[in-house]
Amino acid sequence: MLPCIEDELQRAVDLVKVHGMQEYHRMLAYHMGWEGEGAGPTARGKRIRPLLVLLTDGAAQGDWNNALPAAAAVELIHNFSLIHDDIQDGSDQRRGRPTVWKAWGTAQAINSGDAMFALAHLTIFRLAGTTNEHTAFQAAHMLQETCLELTKGQFLDMSYETQSQLMIEDYWPMVSGKTAALLATCTELGALIAGADERIRSYYRQFGRSLGLAFQVQDDILGIWGDAALTGKSAESDLLTGKKSLPVLFGLSQKGRFSQRWAEGPIQPDEVSQLAKVLEEEGAYNYTQNTSAELTQRALQSLSDTQPISEYADALIELANHLVNRRG
Amino acid sequence: MLPCIEDELQRAVDLVKVHGMQEYHRMLAYHMGWEGEGAGPTARGKRIRPLLVLLTDGAAQGDWNNALPAAAAVELIHNFSLIHDDIQDGSDQRRGRPTVWKAWGTAQAINSGDAMFALAHLTIFRLAGTTNEHTAFQAAHMLQETCLELTKGQFLDMSYETQSQLMIEDYWPMVSGKTAALLATCTELGALIAGADERIRSYYRQFGRSLGLAFQVQDDILGIWGDAALTGKSAESDLLTGKKSLPVLFGLSQKGRFSQRWAEGPIQPDEVSQLAKVLEEEGAYNYTQNTSAELTQRALQSLSDTQPISEYADALIELANHLVNRRG
Repeated sequence: MLPCIEDELQRAVDLVKVHGMQEYHRMLAYHMGWEGEGAGPTARGKRIRPLLVLLTDGAAQGDWNNALPAAAAVELIHNFSLIHDDIQDGSDQRRGRPTVWKAWGTAQAINSGDAMFALAHLTIFRLAGTTNEHTAFQAAHMLQETCLELTKGQFLDMSYETQSQLMIEDYWPMVSGKTAALLATCTELGALIAGADERIRSYYRQFGRSLGLAFQVQDDILGIWGDAALTGKSAESDLLTGKKSLPVLFGLSQKGRFSQRWAEGPIQPDEVSQLAKVLEEEGAYNYTQNTSAELTQRALQSLSDTQPISEYADALIELANHLVNRRG
Repeated sequence: MLPCIEDELQRAVDLVKVHGMQEYHRMLAYHMGWEGEGAGPTARGKRIRPLLVLLTDGAAQGDWNNALPAAAAVELIHNFSLIHDDIQDGSDQRRGRPTVWKAWGTAQAINSGDAMFALAHLTIFRLAGTTNEHTAFQAAHMLQETCLELTKGQFLDMSYETQSQLMIEDYWPMVSGKTAALLATCTELGALIAGADERIRSYYRQFGRSLGLAFQVQDDILGIWGDAALTGKSAESDLLTGKKSLPVLFGLSQKGRFSQRWAEGPIQPDEVSQLAKVLEEEGAYNYTQNTSAELTQRALQSLSDTQPISEYADALIELANHLVNRRG
């Protein structure tokens, strides 16, 4: 499936490959991991979202080749959001290479993200050729609603940076928008394109949504207790960036030593490993790990409710387990 | 028509008016000129693009009420591009008020532009209710292609800033993308929604495209010889910002005194009025004015080719003349 995904993605990005615009195409191809220094599989990312679309389509008895435009579209949306996120966070590295804004400046990077956004939607319209216009219309509408959810999640994430009175409950609307909405749309798109009925589609949507939440919670665990985070050498630890992740919000709710230290101002690199231990002792690790496990369980239950075709179901379960059990 | 346009726009922007997101809605409502200090007609702009959609729809024998979702969508796209342009140009004022990035910071402004982009497309999908799904699909596709053209024009515009070997011919692909593509889409959308055949639609498209080019050329004239530009007190003059507008590219092609001075480095405020005179003497004013007049003529010829219904045709001619004869 992966080579077909790359072909479809390249076909989309080639829409900006016109006379006098070589450099524009280069920015997008660089971000997608095809060109420039460090190009290759690592720079491309794992293409998890398009794989979810295609595997879901197969599991719902579709021919996944017909879902390729949707698979490419969700990956382009993901990459649009990464290009803009990197500017917003001031991150200068992405998958081990300089980010687009670092290489070409903020102004061109904003524009590259906008292009990626437009390319995503132009690509999903191609479903009219592989399925029919009605399905393409529904799919395009669903993807666009998801984009609006993404911006809502992003708004909350940025707003939280300056808010001190947050509670655990504030976490869910933020990650629903930032992460779960797109994964829910990936799995529902697969089912829609396969021609599944509304009930089955909603199970697939639930599967993607719960998986997306579990994935994000796992990401939050790695952001504090992952190998890269614990070294404290870089900005890899969410304790250094001040991110309001689930373990941090749990820690703050306990009003113990962690909460006290957090209120005193920015955490320093040499405190990271000790503070992660305090947070663990106050129960944040167990709480977050249990939450992730429960969400994963819920995701797998929804998947089972869809009564998927086994070979694709096995691949989906494997992908889900990979996402929520990864170590880095 | 204007109150209906505002209603449709508010309805679109209200999609982000949800619990806990009041501030997000406020940013968008502020940019649209509805809220905050200085809100009102001036802060809203002239809503030229939605008016073009509705008047064209009427001229092509449609009921313009059915075209309202398209009218709102093109205005939202225009405003998406303004929010991002202001960040890219570092402009801190827009229609006499602080820009979104100036008021809320770059990160939130990028996200607000992205939201405006998504809202535009969600809004054009509403044509499925006022016309039919096939028309809505065609309209959404046309608008999305236009967005990609916008980013191409923007890429060229930003690239030109650092290029010294530009020729007059380089001007047209840039303004085709930045200005003419959206105006061409406005007029074609009106005709499409009215149910006009392909031949008539292409005349309307030509009308909008030529009008867009004439509008931009006129803007370039004002950027150098307009009242605000000649005072040289602010960054109102394109000679100060170094913008590669049509008169500047013409001046450079003449390889005379203007070109010589330009090559020596940034123009200072006290030189602006004298240099504008030099440029005029070298023929740039006449050349640009003639180009604008010719494009306007071409636009009006295309409009006449559509055999429009007279009351709407009169309004379109009036709007066109207003756009290409304005003084500020």
